[in-house]
Amino acid sequence: MRYRDAGVDIDAANQLKKTIGRLARSTFTPGVVSEVGLFGSLFQLKGWRDPLLVASCDGVGTKLTVARICGCHDTVGTDIVNHCVNDILTLGARPLFFLDYLAGSRLEPALVANVVRGLARACRAHGCALVGGETALMPGWYQGDEFDLVGFILGAVERKRVVDASRIAPGDVLIGLPSNGLHTNGYSLARKVLFERAGLKMDARVKGLRRPLGKELLRPHRSYFSAVYPLLGSLKALAHITGGGFYENLGRLLPSECSCVIHRRSWRPGELFQLIARLGDVPSHEMYRTFNMGIGMVLFCAPGRKARLLASLRGARVIGKVVRGTFGVAVV
Amino acid sequence: MRYRDAGVDIDAANQLKKTIGRLARSTFTPGVVSEVGLFGSLFQLKGWRDPLLVASCDGVGTKLTVARICGCHDTVGTDIVNHCVNDILTLGARPLFFLDYLAGSRLEPALVANVVRGLARACRAHGCALVGGETALMPGWYQGDEFDLVGFILGAVERKRVVDASRIAPGDVLIGLPSNGLHTNGYSLARKVLFERAGLKMDARVKGLRRPLGKELLRPHRSYFSAVYPLLGSLKALAHITGGGFYENLGRLLPSECSCVIHRRSWRPGELFQLIARLGDVPSHEMYRTFNMGIGMVLFCAPGRKARLLASLRGARVIGKVVRGTFGVAVV
Repeated sequence: MRYRDAGVDIDAANQLKKTIGRLARSTFTPGVVSEVGLFGSLFQLKGWRDPLLVASCDGVGTKLTVARICGCHDTVGTDIVNHCVNDILTLGARPLFFLDYLAGSRLEPALVANVVRGLARACRAHGCALVGGETALMPGWYQGDEFDLVGFILGAVERKRVVDASRIAPGDVLIGLPSNGLHTNGYSLARKVLFERAGLKMDARVKGLRRPLGKELLRPHRSYFSAVYPLLGSLKALAHITGGGFYENLGRLLPSECSCVIHRRSWRPGELFQLIARLGDVPSHEMYRTFNMGIGMVLFCAPGRKARLLASLRGARVIGKVVRGTFGVAVV
Repeated sequence: MRYRDAGVDIDAANQLKKTIGRLARSTFTPGVVSEVGLFGSLFQLKGWRDPLLVASCDGVGTKLTVARICGCHDTVGTDIVNHCVNDILTLGARPLFFLDYLAGSRLEPALVANVVRGLARACRAHGCALVGGETALMPGWYQGDEFDLVGFILGAVERKRVVDASRIAPGDVLIGLPSNGLHTNGYSLARKVLFERAGLKMDARVKGLRRPLGKELLRPHRSYFSAVYPLLGSLKALAHITGGGFYENLGRLLPSECSCVIHRRSWRPGELFQLIARLGDVPSHEMYRTFNMGIGMVLFCAPGRKARLLASLRGARVIGKVVRGTFGVAVV
């Protein structure tokens, strides 16, 4: 018996590594010191005075199922990079490098190459080097053709520029930036409602949605980096609206004695969110703690900064404010 | 319908986050700047002159299946930390911090806590802070109770101390350090042979193995950090023997014109490896390119350094040498 008989083909895996290496090298920045293929990746911090490192990791969740059914795998690579970039942006950080982990019971080389192509494209767009990663064949592990995709990002921020949410105070304004659909969370509920309960198909055309349902669900997670990074000096805090929705992601930033009120009428959630709420009979509170509802990033600023921010950020709008109180987050 | 009906219970997940936060805090070092629960983790590099960052990521592979069947989940946490620590040690790096990703169709809070307990213990042992991670509930994703565990490590090394394998030259000596069983690779083949083909059970007592089969398979991946880090100045290169075995992990270090010869008679692979070869009728070449065969780390040194290294490293032995040639790695 050979390893191949157990579902692991080391030769095919090595061939794939070459393709991945080529794509990875296309993202390299001057900070990358090592070549592809060592046990670790070497990176030098250059041009920083007193940097703090900022790290985060996340997965794409069951959006991968939608990608698999639609046979479209490059957007999930973009999703995970943009998700991670947004996460560390909330602390004021600029991305330095990224590593990915991709695992499945079987992994079609073409599929993996497509995923990595999406990763590399999104990394290049952020000057973020794809320095390494792992592709793991785990036979019998995942249901059918499912696979998992995890991203790890490292960024840096000058110590004196760290976004410090403790400065949030009553009277601060909350500015919402539009999302591009569901981004990367809430897919378990969305799929249950749309496909299991309502019996819709991926290629269903739904009134109010421009593209077929599957395509709408796969819209890439938007990166707020290029729009927001130059404006960080005007902000007190940033909340990336992902799993846990408004409640958890705004709530974890609030200093004691501060709460915030979100005015849901201040924007119109896209048709996809309304469709899920309607077809699934999902209570409003549940919607706002599961989905981004059309707002992918919330910025906290002093009232005096509001006008400039609204003028500089496309699609930005005031969606609420910080008040004195201990109730946390209220969506009214 | 609520998110809970789709298999995701945000409240239970939040409770679990508190337990994980407590365990994570137990690993914190002075470099950790941020509290648990932000969108990213802040870390300061302190006491370094001209550091290079060294990053790596890896998974535990299907050793997790053995852990699940045996109901023992804290050793896999240790496995992934030690695996990652060894990987960056090969470049001369000391670990700074670690992030983990844990995903499953359902995740018992007790199981997750056990995994993280193992992670935290291994992190503390290396002065490595567990600064963050992600726990992802992905209903319907993994087969039954399977889950995946991925680790991401960041370390640093002074630029002038980076282990530079390009100095490897003909005549260099290869010193092998004993492994503690299979470590974290080759489990797909091992399980296929031992359980599917030979029909053994996890609690089988096999002649020559001290503990029941499942326990032997779960022996934790050994960390070579404390033994090897003080001796890095005497080494030219280090190969961590993981997936791809001797061929891939030694081969990727060799400069052109250099090859290496491993004398397989210079040590005796443990009984577990012999059992797998015998029961699975696995060709010798396949064994040495799949498993560590009892040698978890191979050190390259100039002949003049050999005596001191052998005296300093428990269980170390000469297992081969570097020769002129382009054949790569030969196990003879």
